[in-house]
Amino acid sequence: MPKYHDELDAVLRALADPTRRAVVERLARSPAVVSELAAPFSMALPSLMQHLRVLESAGIISSQKDGRVRTVTLRPGGLDVVHLWLDEQRTPAERQADRLGIHLTRTTRRERLT
Amino acid sequence: MPKYHDELDAVLRALADPTRRAVVERLARSPAVVSELAAPFSMALPSLMQHLRVLESAGIISSQKDGRVRTVTLRPGGLDVVHLWLDEQRTPAERQADRLGIHLTRTTRRERLT
Repeated sequence: MPKYHDELDAVLRALADPTRRAVVERLARSPAVVSELAAPFSMALPSLMQHLRVLESAGIISSQKDGRVRTVTLRPGGLDVVHLWLDEQRTPAERQADRLGIHLTRTTRRERLT
Repeated sequence: MPKYHDELDAVLRALADPTRRAVVERLARSPAVVSELAAPFSMALPSLMQHLRVLESAGIISSQKDGRVRTVTLRPGGLDVVHLWLDEQRTPAERQADRLGIHLTRTTRRERLT
């Protein structure tokens, strides 16, 4: 799956930077215009724009320009590729613990119902 | 939480490299000795050892030396910090979808039981 691996690579490289993660954290609350995103960082606007381009080309954010105002949004599902990869890396012991957890939940629920 | 952010930063930087991800993918199946890990990569051993050091200092893997053989293991829970961060970045719409999903599961289960 080269597409999956390219996407995963772009997303993880984008998230490896603390400024870009801070932008994602802000956007998880609500969409924002570029000037709002720039405010908490002591950073020149061109540097912030560069970070936004990296996030956008990784498919993590999308942006829309209305006149001179650009609004940036977290793209739903943009981080799913990392979730997927992490799930694949569960060790056999962790998978077994998951199954035990599911079994215990089911057993407890059944006991409560009987 | 500076410790959480430092850990997250180290783990995401470590995972931003495709060779290091390939090592994690191999170790998710089972522990391995260094020579086994080196085999699929056309890479000098010192370069692989450098990648292993990055993964170990990020807390993703641990290693144990027995005589001249070093065995490398995926550290259980070593990737949890990324799971945590990803969960925090769910947008309000995604959280709402989750709640709807949980509600539907509960409703369906209740209907099946009555």
